[in-house]
Amino acid sequence: MGKILRVNMADRTARFEEVPEAYRLMGGRWLTTSMVCDEVDPMCHPLGPNNKIVIAPGIVTGTAAPTSARVSVGGKSPLTGGIKEANAGSTFPPQMARMGLKAIVIEGQPEEKGKFWTLRVGVDSATFEPADEWLGRSLREVFPEIFGRYGKKTGICAIGMVGERLMSNAGICFNDVDGRASRYAGRGGLGAVLGSKGLKLILLDDSGASPVPLADKERFHAGRKALTEALRTHAVTKPGGALNSYGTAVLINIMNEAGGLPTRNFSSGTFEGAAKVAGEAINEGAKERGGAGRTGHNCSPGCIIKCSNVWPHPDGTEHASCLEYESLWAFGPNCGIDDLDIVAELVQLCNDYGLDTIEAGNVIAVAMEAGLAEFGDGEKAIELMHEIGKGTPLGQILGSGATITGNTFGVVRIPAVKGQAMPAYEPRAVKGIGITYATTTMGADHTAGYTIAPEILAVGGDEDALEVKGKADTSRNLQTATAFLDATGHCLFIAFAILDIVEGFNGMIEECNGVLGTEWTADDVTRIGHEILKKERAFNEAAGFTPLDDRMPEFMRYEKLPPHNTVWDVPDEMLDSVWNF
Amino acid sequence: MGKILRVNMADRTARFEEVPEAYRLMGGRWLTTSMVCDEVDPMCHPLGPNNKIVIAPGIVTGTAAPTSARVSVGGKSPLTGGIKEANAGSTFPPQMARMGLKAIVIEGQPEEKGKFWTLRVGVDSATFEPADEWLGRSLREVFPEIFGRYGKKTGICAIGMVGERLMSNAGICFNDVDGRASRYAGRGGLGAVLGSKGLKLILLDDSGASPVPLADKERFHAGRKALTEALRTHAVTKPGGALNSYGTAVLINIMNEAGGLPTRNFSSGTFEGAAKVAGEAINEGAKERGGAGRTGHNCSPGCIIKCSNVWPHPDGTEHASCLEYESLWAFGPNCGIDDLDIVAELVQLCNDYGLDTIEAGNVIAVAMEAGLAEFGDGEKAIELMHEIGKGTPLGQILGSGATITGNTFGVVRIPAVKGQAMPAYEPRAVKGIGITYATTTMGADHTAGYTIAPEILAVGGDEDALEVKGKADTSRNLQTATAFLDATGHCLFIAFAILDIVEGFNGMIEECNGVLGTEWTADDVTRIGHEILKKERAFNEAAGFTPLDDRMPEFMRYEKLPPHNTVWDVPDEMLDSVWNF
Repeated sequence: MGKILRVNMADRTARFEEVPEAYRLMGGRWLTTSMVCDEVDPMCHPLGPNNKIVIAPGIVTGTAAPTSARVSVGGKSPLTGGIKEANAGSTFPPQMARMGLKAIVIEGQPEEKGKFWTLRVGVDSATFEPADEWLGRSLREVFPEIFGRYGKKTGICAIGMVGERLMSNAGICFNDVDGRASRYAGRGGLGAVLGSKGLKLILLDDSGASPVPLADKERFHAGRKALTEALRTHAVTKPGGALNSYGTAVLINIMNEAGGLPTRNFSSGTFEGAAKVAGEAINEGAKERGGAGRTGHNCSPGCIIKCSNVWPHPDGTEHASCLEYESLWAFGPNCGIDDLDIVAELVQLCNDYGLDTIEAGNVIAVAMEAGLAEFGDGEKAIELMHEIGKGTPLGQILGSGATITGNTFGVVRIPAVKGQAMPAYEPRAVKGIGITYATTTMGADHTAGYTIAPEILAVGGDEDALEVKGKADTSRNLQTATAFLDATGHCLFIAFAILDIVEGFNGMIEECNGVLGTEWTADDVTRIGHEILKKERAFNEAAGFTPLDDRMPEFMRYEKLPPHNTVWDVPDEMLDSVWNF
Repeated sequence: MGKILRVNMADRTARFEEVPEAYRLMGGRWLTTSMVCDEVDPMCHPLGPNNKIVIAPGIVTGTAAPTSARVSVGGKSPLTGGIKEANAGSTFPPQMARMGLKAIVIEGQPEEKGKFWTLRVGVDSATFEPADEWLGRSLREVFPEIFGRYGKKTGICAIGMVGERLMSNAGICFNDVDGRASRYAGRGGLGAVLGSKGLKLILLDDSGASPVPLADKERFHAGRKALTEALRTHAVTKPGGALNSYGTAVLINIMNEAGGLPTRNFSSGTFEGAAKVAGEAINEGAKERGGAGRTGHNCSPGCIIKCSNVWPHPDGTEHASCLEYESLWAFGPNCGIDDLDIVAELVQLCNDYGLDTIEAGNVIAVAMEAGLAEFGDGEKAIELMHEIGKGTPLGQILGSGATITGNTFGVVRIPAVKGQAMPAYEPRAVKGIGITYATTTMGADHTAGYTIAPEILAVGGDEDALEVKGKADTSRNLQTATAFLDATGHCLFIAFAILDIVEGFNGMIEECNGVLGTEWTADDVTRIGHEILKKERAFNEAAGFTPLDDRMPEFMRYEKLPPHNTVWDVPDEMLDSVWNF
């Protein structure tokens, strides 16, 4: 039932191992979390020899399950000091699954610093090559050359120059369906961990790979059909629906309306320039400019939601992919910038250098707060991003995330939890998402328990965003279901459909049963979700975290956020109650 | 019984308050810790409006008690995130005591950033003046001008330019007996807290001050005499003794011999150039060059140990004061530098800019580890220090301490506990001091429980430095006694005498009884010491600390330290047992 590839960078050895029985049913976040908990000392230095990186596709990844081509990357985060799972969609995960690779584990550390390697993986082989020629270069240049050298079907996992330089906001980059260096397991700085191991690239050659074995084909296909039907029916996920038409950036106007669009480093909940950077403007602009521009683009094979996009220059040539809501918000409203071309450039620089966009946008906003630029000054924002690329001391600060940037410049308003900067939803205006930010094991992370669905979108319930009551339950339930979903390899966005359409939810479970030969029900979703969360929580406790790490930054407790003029008022006991299970 | 001056920088008001009964017997660290615990939210941002600075002279400060002119400064540390007490000797503390000022509390924060004020305090007055003219300048220039403007007897408490810029390694500077800007409550970045409150200077005018009242004069004087006798007798503290002749830098050769002199960023325990920067070399060099150079200098009034010194340029003009062991080591052996003139310049730059030397030296060493300079390159080290003065982005990093410097550049070997860099004793070679570093509430701090006395100097016992057994008791006992000693206002260096000479120890207690009218015995030393430690520990717990914060950095557990080739092997349970009382 597949194998694990274990790579030791201390002596550059790689060996295939049997999958231990305990891991047999696992995939995605379930597997990365379990292996990290089993193998990594929670007190280790994230960039030292004792941290590890675990890469694992989901349970149904590589099958015909819709929107399931995701790969999880796990390790101890240099940004949070806790456990981390970040995932991405790409051709890489289904290739990995079809090659029978349940996980790749990267451990050890070469004694020589500054030397980097490429790991080439085939169905039965794993070899190393020096990576010197790829170092210090934009991934936009590197990826096409790799496809030229190793073939167009190569699956690429890479770090950018910021990962080489061990900056704590380095993500791990995978190719999209068209070969772009644009799909990131971005959050938490795992790219720096890979950098600390001297591993620049993992290249997959899936020649000779076999289909992912199905224990019960009929069951799998019944599940797949039910989930597909749900995705094709739900207003958010259906073809021509909200995500397909406008991408995730459809949320810009919605969050602005709700007064929960963090603006100018979390000092307001509305942005006067929101409409200019909204999904609707992308859709229109891409059409108008034509050429490479498009919406309704899929990031990974087999996705039927297709929420990605390609933003063109005025002349129609490609500028950046993808302008998704979080990236757009981070560099747009959060920096007071209302120009899509500027934002596109900032996003593309993240893709080029190897940065997580959410953290990077927060960094620029915190730097603006520190006086390094005026809010709204897009040209200066681009200059600051180039500092990161150049690796100047200022660049090293900015590449290290919002917390280090703020602490280095004495900024008090740092919107972060556990050292990780917040995504695009204001906790003072949307209380449930704040509970998720505070309590998830991941540091501030919306994907860990996306309460925006019921609080803003009336999906999976209809809750008042400003109301506190009941929100611990909302967050807990979503964190639990999400942990399971992250194990399956599905994109989080199937949640919109399966939260409202029970057949879709059951379809997801049946897909897993079809692959694994299990008899899981909704109870197992909860059981497995809880298992994952508890393991992660135990890791963080053993790394020194306490419930006091599950708190919002102090400024949110005394600064009233316009337009609702509300503060963060969720009681600590309610935050702690998220973990009562 | 004295009064408390409470200063609110939000509206620049100051008022004198009665001393609450609960604080009546307190002084120094006992009082700063108690007030911080009573008034500061442990979860507040250290640079936000809810942190406070408490400044308090010791119980016997301002009396004729020998070597007792110390002032404690307390608050929540931006470096450690926990409670902090740092103390210094100066004319300021006895002035404060004679003015009846039990404590000055600085709270609140002006809305306008970048505006700074001078607080002028008289016996019954407290007024504000704009501090613009003193900003961004070397304290070496500023102090003489202040004496010129306000009189030579002015007591000065100041922050340097790094405090203005909110850097986490900003200390709080007091004048020495000759008016130098050289005596620092240095550790933990409390200068940045004062900076965040817009307070540049506190100037004391003690006109009309009265002697510190003595509840029982005879008792006090008996105690004073006994302590003085002990200090005049003990080999370490007596006139012409080790400290008086060679200063604290007498330890350079001793620690080098013991293989416990951290060298080149804690990668070795011996330094081949040790003798060139040792106390003996200072003594000789100062004599040879003559002029301003001298040893056996006292930092504060009423000190009979006189361990300070003034290092001259080759032409005899003054270069720097004071080249004490920690400062000298930090920039010398720890940076691989063996040139006293270079080291003197680096120390003086700390005094000029307003930095703690221990942290600053560690910063340079970590920067060298990161490749910003070669170990041993003194000129480059000076350049790096100037970056701090200039406030460049690199300077902001380096001014923020060793942990931020290391994290920003991806350095794993960061010798710090709770974010504070280690002093001049290698924990792998001197196990007891490592237990103190790990377990004190202060972050890595030798003064919190100076086990070097029994482990290296055969003072207060004679213990094998490499032996682990029994060292938790050694550290606990010394941490307890030190907490009391820090309450009295005595310099820590009286410990050498009172650990060996029981009459001196009792003399210290009798001085307190004489001042306060109490009937304390040695049991009260323990009781009060425990009370202080427990309050500090409770603060830190409420700020999110756990026993896992009482750990050495991971690299010390796997990197063997030459010449003993030992690792950090003190069991966690032993570390935790320090707090069993």
